Amino acid sequence: MKAQIKVTLKKGVLDPQGQAIEGALKSLGFEGVDSVRQGKVFDIELGETDPMQARNMLNQMCQKLLANTVIEDYTVALSE
Amino acid sequence: MKAQIKVTLKKGVLDPQGQAIEGALKSLGFEGVDSVRQGKVFDIELGETDPMQARNMLNQMCQKLLANTVIEDYTVALSE
Repeated sequence: MKAQIKVTLKKGVLDPQGQAIEGALKSLGFEGVDSVRQGKVFDIELGETDPMQARNMLNQMCQKLLANTVIEDYTVALSE
Repeated sequence: MKAQIKVTLKKGVLDPQGQAIEGALKSLGFEGVDSVRQGKVFDIELGETDPMQARNMLNQMCQKLLANTVIEDYTVALSE
């Protein structure tokens, strides 16, 4: 079973990396960029075949390792 | 208009960061993790309202700044 986990900064948390990218895009001549926020994406392949179990496990992975839930949100999407 | 750009390593390109995460998950007791690949996600807000123009601009952003197209793939998704 394949899963994609997206980890993004919570709204209101400062994102200096995103701001740097926004600045770089502007200096390259891209107009009308209102905001850029950067996050992480994890493509995970699991042996688990039960969607409920897999989702449960992925949520635990996020809470224990992949996301800092104080400042980050995460979403889990399963495929196959 | 909001857009989400996902940048991931091409298939076959070594991902030491993903391997480190895979190892960490296993050492935390998560069984059955077959592979982990890490990528980046950019949430971008654009002033542009024409979807065609916006997509065009986002593709250029990827090619010029956001992705290294030698080793990375990118996908552009528009919303609103």
